[in-house]
Amino acid sequence: MARWDPDAPERLASAALDLFAERGYENTTVIDIAQRAGLTKSTFFRHFPDKREVLFGGDTVATLTAAAITAAPPEATPLEAVAHALETLGAQTFTPTRREFSAKRWTVIAATPELREREALKGLGITAAMIKALTGRGVPALTASVAAELAALAWKIAYERWHDPTSTAGFGELARQALTEVQAASALC
Amino acid sequence: MARWDPDAPERLASAALDLFAERGYENTTVIDIAQRAGLTKSTFFRHFPDKREVLFGGDTVATLTAAAITAAPPEATPLEAVAHALETLGAQTFTPTRREFSAKRWTVIAATPELREREALKGLGITAAMIKALTGRGVPALTASVAAELAALAWKIAYERWHDPTSTAGFGELARQALTEVQAASALC
Repeated sequence: MARWDPDAPERLASAALDLFAERGYENTTVIDIAQRAGLTKSTFFRHFPDKREVLFGGDTVATLTAAAITAAPPEATPLEAVAHALETLGAQTFTPTRREFSAKRWTVIAATPELREREALKGLGITAAMIKALTGRGVPALTASVAAELAALAWKIAYERWHDPTSTAGFGELARQALTEVQAASALC
Repeated sequence: MARWDPDAPERLASAALDLFAERGYENTTVIDIAQRAGLTKSTFFRHFPDKREVLFGGDTVATLTAAAITAAPPEATPLEAVAHALETLGAQTFTPTRREFSAKRWTVIAATPELREREALKGLGITAAMIKALTGRGVPALTASVAAELAALAWKIAYERWHDPTSTAGFGELARQALTEVQAASALC
C-alpha cells in the first residue's frame, strides 16, 4: 500500500465515486474510500478536509477559469473573455477523456443533498472568481456580476449537453454555443 | 416550558441566531437552541430536520416567490413578473420590522461555511421555483432561466442594500431598482 502517491487525489475521487454510486454517499465512510483506493485514511485527509470534498478539486476550476479570463485578448467583451475561459476549461479540464467520469460524478451529486450543497457553494466560488477576474480587466462591477451569472448559466447548459452520451461535441464548443443562446435570451427578458 | 407553541419556529430561529452570534455555529448544539428558546429538543426536530435549517424557513420564500410570479398581470414581461414577486416579498416577508433580524442573520451566515452551503442550496431552489413559475406563464425555458438568474442577482444586490443600516428604502423598492440596473448591465456584456 503506497503511503505517498502523486495520483492519490484522483484515485480517491474515483474510488469515492464508485462507492457512492454502489451503496450511496451516506453508507460510505472515508475509511471505505481510502481502502478502495489502496490508501490510508490519513492520506485521504492530507488531500481533502472532509468526505464531501473528495468529488471537488478544491479551487482548481475557479483558479483556472479566473486565469483564463485574465489571459483573454484585451479587446474581448466580458462574455468573449468568459467564452475564452470556458474553451480553456474544455481543453484542459473537461476533456473528452474526462467525460464519462464527469457524467457519473454529476449523477451522484444530483442524487445526494450533501453533495449538491457543496456543489452549490463551489458554484458561488467560481462565480466570485469570474467577477474578480472581469473587474481586473476593467469591467464595471455590476456588468462583471451579470456576465458571470450569464456565464454560470451557459456553463450549466453546456455541462448538461456535454454529459449527454449521444453528443460528440467538446465542452468548449458547447459552452460557446450556450453563451450565444443565453446572451440572445437576455434580450428577451 | 411550553411543549406546543405556534411561534416555536420563530423563537427557535431567534434563539439560534443569538447563540450563533455569541459563541459560533460550531459551538452551539440543538439542545442549546431549544433551551434558549424555552422549548425541547423534540420540538426543534418537529420543525427543523437539522441545526442548519433553523435559519431557513423551509421552502416558504421559494413558494411565495413562485406564487407572486404566477399572479403577476398576464401582459408582464418576465422581469416585470419577477419585479412583482420581489415587491410582494417586500410587503409580506422582508418587511421593515424584519430588517434588523435579517441583517444579523445574514452576518452569521456569511461567517459560517456550513450555513453558506445551505444558503447556496436554498438559492438554487428559489431560482428553480422562479423558472417553473415563469415557464408556467408561457415564457420559453431558456428565457425563464436567464430571467431567474438576473432576478437572483438583483435580489442579492437589493438584499445587501436593504441591510445597510443607513438605508431607509423598503426591500421591494430596492429590488425593482436593482432589477433595472441589472437589465441595463446585461446589455453591456
